Amino acid sequence: MTGPSRRLPRRVREQQMLDAATAVFSERGFHAASMDEIAERAGISKPMVYLYLGSKGELFSACIRRAGGQLTEAISAAADPGLPAEQQLWAAVQAFFGFVGEHREAWAVMFRQARGEGEFAGEVAGIRRLVVDNVADLFARAIHSAGAVDPGPDELRALAHALVGTGESMAEWLLDHPDEKPETAATRLMNMLWMGLGSLIRGEVWRSPVPVPPAR
Amino acid sequence: MTGPSRRLPRRVREQQMLDAATAVFSERGFHAASMDEIAERAGISKPMVYLYLGSKGELFSACIRRAGGQLTEAISAAADPGLPAEQQLWAAVQAFFGFVGEHREAWAVMFRQARGEGEFAGEVAGIRRLVVDNVADLFARAIHSAGAVDPGPDELRALAHALVGTGESMAEWLLDHPDEKPETAATRLMNMLWMGLGSLIRGEVWRSPVPVPPAR
Repeated sequence: MTGPSRRLPRRVREQQMLDAATAVFSERGFHAASMDEIAERAGISKPMVYLYLGSKGELFSACIRRAGGQLTEAISAAADPGLPAEQQLWAAVQAFFGFVGEHREAWAVMFRQARGEGEFAGEVAGIRRLVVDNVADLFARAIHSAGAVDPGPDELRALAHALVGTGESMAEWLLDHPDEKPETAATRLMNMLWMGLGSLIRGEVWRSPVPVPPAR
Repeated sequence: MTGPSRRLPRRVREQQMLDAATAVFSERGFHAASMDEIAERAGISKPMVYLYLGSKGELFSACIRRAGGQLTEAISAAADPGLPAEQQLWAAVQAFFGFVGEHREAWAVMFRQARGEGEFAGEVAGIRRLVVDNVADLFARAIHSAGAVDPGPDELRALAHALVGTGESMAEWLLDHPDEKPETAATRLMNMLWMGLGSLIRGEVWRSPVPVPPAR
């Protein structure tokens, strides 16, 4: 009753449980994951896990919501609307791959597990919609400030949808290639989406608009 | 015993069963789909469905393999290696969206259902790998014929992986927007991937390298 771990505030405990649950879900999948293993990994009794975060389904859902919140916040915080479009996109793309690189298990739970589970797929779809909306807004501002003809909100959403799909696919690549740096995946995305394959094939490559200090 | 449907050759019957199964799986999902409904939809007795194509799992697997075969053949047939890269890619992209537009249910089964089902996900991953390989080969030929520096097979596969992800995401958009023409989705992909967002934002758009007769 008086061990040091007992005195942790509820919020810290909940984060520990979510960390443990995300790890177990990403390794085993939703169906095979057991509350026993999650409780053990978190160093917390199973009744307390149920008491704090509810059933396995509610716990899974809480993992998705936390990951989704972290992802959308990271992207929004990075893409300063005052910057030119190219820099905004570059910052957002870096934030996206930075998130995936740092939270590989959370990405696996959200993208590989939850998307295919009927009851949770809706939550993931909601997070994706938020990201697509943000990207579509970024395009709209970029087109407006370039003085180009606006193709209309539907077309911008379709383009944003395509861009998000490219990012998701590259994130899967990153997960399957643990040696690759998130920065490399981010640069590849810019090469492909900003420069276009037409330029790449001629040997032109995309360069960050802001000078990046050389890696030591 | 002597009704006209009895005299159909086995191959035709099997295709009817696969059509019915694809429709039912795409509507209900693998778990909720019933062999009764599939048999009824195909106008064939349930024992005959089992006899011809096996269990529900084997039937699902046969639907995935048929769709995967049709998709990869359509793409390979379209991308004539003798054409310039841009035209090859345009033909392949058109073939891809043409397939999705014509076989919406098959796409939904393969991409929405099977990818999330542990035991079938491997088959879909195999089909996807084939498509990625073809796209990577196309890039390699294009770079070679442009005389540009080859970034190496890993980088080409990563780019191909990203391109396929963009296509999948745009295919999902097509399914969710039944009024959109496959050609529109194909053009959007070329705009984004070939021209790049940098050009799009300046108002430049991609044009088919082969003149297309005007729509009447």
